[in-house]
Amino acid sequence: MTDSWANPAPDPPAASGADLLLELHGPGLRAGLTDALREAVRNGRLAAGTRLPSSRSLAVDLGVARNTVANAYAELIAEGWLTARQGSGTRVARRATPRRAASPASGDTPTRGRPTYGLLPGSPNLAEFPRTQWLAAARRALTAAPHDAFGYGDALGRVELRTALADYLPRARGVYATPERVVVCSGFQHGLTLVARVLRGRRVRAVAVESYGFGVYRDVLTGAGLRTPPLYVDECGARTDDLARLPGVGAVLLTPAHQYPTGVALRPDRRAAAVDWARASGGLILEDDYDGEFRYDRQPVGALQGLDPERVVYFGTASKSLAPGLRLAWMVLPEELVPEIEAAKGHIDWASSLEQLTLAEFISSGAYDRHLRAMRLRYRRRRDQLVAALAQRAPGIRVTGVAAGLQVLLELPRGTERSVVEAAAARGLAVRGMAQFRYEVADSGWRLPEQDALVVNYAAPPDSAWAGALDALCRVMP
Amino acid sequence: MTDSWANPAPDPPAASGADLLLELHGPGLRAGLTDALREAVRNGRLAAGTRLPSSRSLAVDLGVARNTVANAYAELIAEGWLTARQGSGTRVARRATPRRAASPASGDTPTRGRPTYGLLPGSPNLAEFPRTQWLAAARRALTAAPHDAFGYGDALGRVELRTALADYLPRARGVYATPERVVVCSGFQHGLTLVARVLRGRRVRAVAVESYGFGVYRDVLTGAGLRTPPLYVDECGARTDDLARLPGVGAVLLTPAHQYPTGVALRPDRRAAAVDWARASGGLILEDDYDGEFRYDRQPVGALQGLDPERVVYFGTASKSLAPGLRLAWMVLPEELVPEIEAAKGHIDWASSLEQLTLAEFISSGAYDRHLRAMRLRYRRRRDQLVAALAQRAPGIRVTGVAAGLQVLLELPRGTERSVVEAAAARGLAVRGMAQFRYEVADSGWRLPEQDALVVNYAAPPDSAWAGALDALCRVMP
Repeated sequence: MTDSWANPAPDPPAASGADLLLELHGPGLRAGLTDALREAVRNGRLAAGTRLPSSRSLAVDLGVARNTVANAYAELIAEGWLTARQGSGTRVARRATPRRAASPASGDTPTRGRPTYGLLPGSPNLAEFPRTQWLAAARRALTAAPHDAFGYGDALGRVELRTALADYLPRARGVYATPERVVVCSGFQHGLTLVARVLRGRRVRAVAVESYGFGVYRDVLTGAGLRTPPLYVDECGARTDDLARLPGVGAVLLTPAHQYPTGVALRPDRRAAAVDWARASGGLILEDDYDGEFRYDRQPVGALQGLDPERVVYFGTASKSLAPGLRLAWMVLPEELVPEIEAAKGHIDWASSLEQLTLAEFISSGAYDRHLRAMRLRYRRRRDQLVAALAQRAPGIRVTGVAAGLQVLLELPRGTERSVVEAAAARGLAVRGMAQFRYEVADSGWRLPEQDALVVNYAAPPDSAWAGALDALCRVMP
Repeated sequence: MTDSWANPAPDPPAASGADLLLELHGPGLRAGLTDALREAVRNGRLAAGTRLPSSRSLAVDLGVARNTVANAYAELIAEGWLTARQGSGTRVARRATPRRAASPASGDTPTRGRPTYGLLPGSPNLAEFPRTQWLAAARRALTAAPHDAFGYGDALGRVELRTALADYLPRARGVYATPERVVVCSGFQHGLTLVARVLRGRRVRAVAVESYGFGVYRDVLTGAGLRTPPLYVDECGARTDDLARLPGVGAVLLTPAHQYPTGVALRPDRRAAAVDWARASGGLILEDDYDGEFRYDRQPVGALQGLDPERVVYFGTASKSLAPGLRLAWMVLPEELVPEIEAAKGHIDWASSLEQLTLAEFISSGAYDRHLRAMRLRYRRRRDQLVAALAQRAPGIRVTGVAAGLQVLLELPRGTERSVVEAAAARGLAVRGMAQFRYEVADSGWRLPEQDALVVNYAAPPDSAWAGALDALCRVMP
């Protein structure tokens, strides 16, 4: 799962209204405010990522109507200068700033404004990327490649990689796959964008999503013109039995193996209900199997896709198993969807053929399985250490979800989430509160429980930082 | 320039109406025909790339109204089973077919149905990809990379590559570039898609395009909701002085250094007229500098972008200078466009960070310049050999355009283009006729001259095939 908001980029403090010395000029108040804000972003006075004051508080500071500020914000969001995201307020967009390359040594070194310990969800342990084995695979792949591997590729992706995945996925994830159903894409977000476009082209109006999840993916769907009614998630996963009661829903986006970010596994009857719904309604299940390789307490449950390959789009990715920087993910499609996805791709391959050939070689040579085995052991040990440390030092904190994946949910006492996140930040610990993963709408007939929680990525820190991160985490627990 | 139609993929012969044994069933004739055609594609009886008979001739064969066939075709095009392209008729879409990896040796070996000599435009000489130097750069880049290079990257692209390009492009192409204006994308088509989306978001309604060009790019623009009025191209390039007379045009897509595919260079006063128009109208120039590195008779003319970096979007690519398979291209943007392009990218990097780091290292180490120098010599020698051979063996054929790039235009006697392309195909020679690059509309007030011509890519064949290709080309000249 991509979590670009979970990047190790610094998270500048919120700008207070008082800091925002805006020179209002221009004919109208709104235009003047818009111009002043735009100029402040352009000349760098408002840095990328800076959180702006709420429209209410800036309006009070400036002595203007709240709508004037809200409209100015809306305009600058439309222009791309600002971004707004539920739960995170209005921020200066991450635009180009002239940054020089970091030196190799600086990877783990805390710099000013940068958290010392990054436990934000979304990333595997980047320090463990198997550089040597990857280079060896690249050398073998590049040496053996036919000349035409350097040309414009098959729009579905290199056949070598699709063949390797069609061998690996059935074996490792119970996916029904043949090379002609596998389509390579540049990350899950790319794949979801393609599927969303195809669904919209088929006149689908809505795609149900889980009531906890990553907002960017909802944005991808709404950006394609689809509504995203939420499906209630409880301790058994998404209530797929409610699908039939959601009007106009043509597909559902699920994380069955390991709900993101609550960490629960979809109960078998809920899996069956999803497939039954898809068959009865002609709908599609979009199965985001972002970390299905990592299960620690038992053999991983096979992908839902195996139940009905013609009704499930399976999404897998190298972003958790290897590294997000590869920008390689894959879909296994119902056969009838392949031509439409190819058309949505613009009939061209998007991912580097050399990188695809390298991953194909990496998988075929067994290096992928070895890497996954090694990482499974490491991540499992980290999770055990986390659970043990909390049990001893913060026994009131409940660790929920199945033993799997890269992150864990820590349930906090009511009303403490925000202060814990802030206390963590003060100790250089970047963690994510549950608030921004919640997704509910007024007319759904239910409300999510008021559960304060932290989503903690125990996989990400390099070994050298893990003990410190764990200690800091325990210290900020209420 | 991407030319996915110029792939070395086989071009199956047109299916005659008689071959198309369709079983019509279903309630209505049209539905029955649609189903029968879909089924024929699905079960592989109609292979990918197969050209279907014209709707007129199939209607006659089946004894149905022409509109019935045309409507069935339109439906299947909308569904993604068929594709239609001006000048190339209706074809079966290139959908997934289970193809096994070609063995390394087979790269240059003619196979059944595959042309012996591929002179289709769009690809550099893939046999000359500098594998060893590329691997060496990958090793250095991967060894030196900070850990976070494997994470979710900067949406604008790796800063190392943007910095290397900001050094290279001013030096080699006269581009005004700073790292914060450079945005990496996955090929020109990706970049154009992003810019088209931003233009549409700015309420631009039309982007003027050259009256000769690659239809896929027009499709990208129209797909974003933009009209594409043509700009007349003569022997001095596009008539940019006409821009002011085209209503509602907010941008113009140009190939100033080497018009594609006529090969002419944009005359200085036309370059100035384009910039004047952009300044006066607030419009943008989209400069596709697809092969600007390759000029053989003089120093290359600098990019138009240098004239006004705030009014020109410069596009460069590794697809011609190195290999399309890398899927790496770059834009240099007017500063104010950067945040909108970042938003259009979905705030994520799309290209592999390892590949980007490798290219950055390849450029910084001087290997890129060395490779370009070597290829310039080779391509120039090929072009000289082609011109000399034609002068001797087909003196009636005129070679037009400046001595640059990878392809050349051969002017043919009136009415011979089609038969020459067919005669070439019979000798295993894949060449492209000018017809499918022509773009005119009824209400433009002008018509393109009825010039028969071939677009010949002399760069693409491997050395072992070049003498044979040249001989075959001379033989089919009228």
